[in-house]
Amino acid sequence: MSPSSEFIAAVEVVDVRFPTSLQLDGSDAMNPEPDYSATYVIVRTSDGIAGYGLAFTVGRGNDVQVAAVQALAPLVVGLPVADVLGDLGGFSRRLTGDSQLRWLGPEKGAIHMAAGAIINAVWDLYGRREGKPVWRLLAELSPDQLVDLVDFRYLQDALTRKEALAILRRAEPGRAARTAQLLDGGYPAYTTTPGWLGYSDEKLVRLAKGAVADGFGLIKLKVGADLGDDLRRMRLARETVGPQVLIAVDANQAWGVHQAIGWMTQLAPYEPYWIEEPTSPDDILGHAAIRRAIAPIKVATGEHVHNQVMFKQLLQAGAIDVLQLDASRTAGITENIAILLLAAKFDIPVCPHAGGVGLCEMVQHLAMFDFVAVSGSTEGRFIEYVDHLHEHFTDPARVRGSRYLAPTAPGISAQMHSRSLTDHRYPDGPVWAALRQRGDQHSLSGSSGPTAAHTAQ
Amino acid sequence: MSPSSEFIAAVEVVDVRFPTSLQLDGSDAMNPEPDYSATYVIVRTSDGIAGYGLAFTVGRGNDVQVAAVQALAPLVVGLPVADVLGDLGGFSRRLTGDSQLRWLGPEKGAIHMAAGAIINAVWDLYGRREGKPVWRLLAELSPDQLVDLVDFRYLQDALTRKEALAILRRAEPGRAARTAQLLDGGYPAYTTTPGWLGYSDEKLVRLAKGAVADGFGLIKLKVGADLGDDLRRMRLARETVGPQVLIAVDANQAWGVHQAIGWMTQLAPYEPYWIEEPTSPDDILGHAAIRRAIAPIKVATGEHVHNQVMFKQLLQAGAIDVLQLDASRTAGITENIAILLLAAKFDIPVCPHAGGVGLCEMVQHLAMFDFVAVSGSTEGRFIEYVDHLHEHFTDPARVRGSRYLAPTAPGISAQMHSRSLTDHRYPDGPVWAALRQRGDQHSLSGSSGPTAAHTAQ
Repeated sequence: MSPSSEFIAAVEVVDVRFPTSLQLDGSDAMNPEPDYSATYVIVRTSDGIAGYGLAFTVGRGNDVQVAAVQALAPLVVGLPVADVLGDLGGFSRRLTGDSQLRWLGPEKGAIHMAAGAIINAVWDLYGRREGKPVWRLLAELSPDQLVDLVDFRYLQDALTRKEALAILRRAEPGRAARTAQLLDGGYPAYTTTPGWLGYSDEKLVRLAKGAVADGFGLIKLKVGADLGDDLRRMRLARETVGPQVLIAVDANQAWGVHQAIGWMTQLAPYEPYWIEEPTSPDDILGHAAIRRAIAPIKVATGEHVHNQVMFKQLLQAGAIDVLQLDASRTAGITENIAILLLAAKFDIPVCPHAGGVGLCEMVQHLAMFDFVAVSGSTEGRFIEYVDHLHEHFTDPARVRGSRYLAPTAPGISAQMHSRSLTDHRYPDGPVWAALRQRGDQHSLSGSSGPTAAHTAQ
Repeated sequence: MSPSSEFIAAVEVVDVRFPTSLQLDGSDAMNPEPDYSATYVIVRTSDGIAGYGLAFTVGRGNDVQVAAVQALAPLVVGLPVADVLGDLGGFSRRLTGDSQLRWLGPEKGAIHMAAGAIINAVWDLYGRREGKPVWRLLAELSPDQLVDLVDFRYLQDALTRKEALAILRRAEPGRAARTAQLLDGGYPAYTTTPGWLGYSDEKLVRLAKGAVADGFGLIKLKVGADLGDDLRRMRLARETVGPQVLIAVDANQAWGVHQAIGWMTQLAPYEPYWIEEPTSPDDILGHAAIRRAIAPIKVATGEHVHNQVMFKQLLQAGAIDVLQLDASRTAGITENIAILLLAAKFDIPVCPHAGGVGLCEMVQHLAMFDFVAVSGSTEGRFIEYVDHLHEHFTDPARVRGSRYLAPTAPGISAQMHSRSLTDHRYPDGPVWAALRQRGDQHSLSGSSGPTAAHTAQ
């Protein structure tokens, strides 16, 4: 990085929402009617370069995320770009460690997700300046550079800097070969497309057949609302895909610990591969108890696990078989590097959470970096894939057959088309204006709408 | 509750901030310059009755809390008051379980604190209608009514409904005697007033002497920034208060697990009573490791523990000796009932976190309810007391000698004077306007100030 007077000139944020609740795409036991949304962040420099990131939400509350990004923006605007890109670990700590804003977390919830959106936008900027997709940018940093990005303060009882360096150095000699392998053959995906709770049996079977035809080795079904339905859908899915294709199930936190064990015992004859989010994502000890009780069915979680300290404990407690990091729940790429290193230390495979808006686009960079420079393996590893909303991205995730192709465009793949932003901006974009006009209350319960809340005099 | 057509007509919210950073009151290892603030909530009914609650923050970010309250308000406005007060458990789940808003948590961070502020305002309303302070309102509910308020979904592996009922029934016969005892003699307090990190040695000694003279049996010092300073301050404090008065220390999350153990081993000769927040509040297993290593020094945490699932695990893991619930971090009175029952089940004393803005006022109701109707004891129990900002409340916490007097006015004691609200409203109240005029940038770094952040076109 050559010294320059370039600085961060603006942090812009847009409330973008898609009325997905109209189709019941994305319906599960805890999210019956999501409107997939993004708190979309653009970081602009004084030289006219921009980086793009986002936090994914499911509708109402996207306005709170916008406020959280706006609260963090003054910590970013005015910083020299060279200082930021030269110390992205320090930059992340600046956002997650602000002595006043961290009260809203610390390192969790709206303020942490907002930090992640900004941090990812800055990583995007970094990738664009280097002319590299972020997976490759990361995979070409030295072990020392990577370890410098990690905040070890709360991790050292599970992972020291020295251990992290050893993991990265062990993977170093094979980086070039694995990069070539990735560019050639891509990375394994699994699909959640057949399994939404709102789908009919007929649609489930049709989509499951399609998934097998596409070569997927793992599909996922949502469960947890009704045991009878789950038994029937699991049987249909197993009959459709045969004994070889893996079927994961996902309860989206619907159960208590004992209930999870009971329910999964009922589903066991259909050989579920993993149970995802069986209970509260905060319940480390609960996941450990479930895992002990239902082995060999695996336990997976992560999309709502809010930071590296929680992942550390899930690993220390032997609570999970599969770690599902998320691109927008934690503090972005930087914190996810720590999470990948923790997973490698405990030899637990990472299968990122995706779907939503832009999550497939972003997490592929993390999984591919993991393969090239951290774990060095794709065994037992898959990136989630859901085939909607990709058309809104300028560099959409590309899945061919059952594999993610490695992105080659610079950045983190989170940039959306200007038209998509304009059309879906909430509450004033034309898509929402039209829904309002036809009186579709179903999707217009957003909190930015008319409300009796106001500021007292 | 007689049927009526009264409904909730409005949820109002005010951003109130006090420029406490100018005095370094409230300074600790992680919060060097807090501006104590409140996201102040007023719930008004169609009959002109109001309830008052708040979320406490330390300055920047209070605007994000305001946005979170506004996001929840549409779930509240329009509800019949009789339905809400007749099923406060259901009302709490409505706020914490909204299928879209819970994505920002779930049950943590800004959205959960906002739910707590609204829920407490509704409990305040309930107390006012019944003409009772909330501690007494709670202590006069039947065990069945109390247990109906608890959401057991994620608790049952540690506390069943039946066990909770047994705890409450065991305490029932002594309720009247303990209520009389409380009205007569109050509840034990401890004081943090002498111990702020920004205070000089002279001020520390002077205030510690004053605390002893007032009869306090426990004082607290902030630690964690510099070991040499901590050793000197701890020695001075111990010399000042003598061997009988307990001295707790509070690191406000400054350390990693091993560092906490090392630091406390150094301080051990001065016999600290408890170490509070030795590390990340999320690190259940870390607290358990620290506790094992430094016994008989006790381990305390809670002010940043974000929900009942985390408290459940701190208790299951044997991670704490003292549980420090907070009135505004979790989802208000309702969730705190569950936390008190968990503590009683595991026989761990509750010493609420207070100070801040309005926390002394609110938590006293929980501790007193605990004494009368849950644990039945004040042994090893103290409510934190800090002697500032009480003048802004219409029913301020009253500490005489070293004891909290039981509130007798109806409600939860969170109502502020209109003048205090008007003067300290951020950013446009006269206190802030005056600071801005004299160019005091120190306290004007708030995120609601001028910023380059804006919404993209």
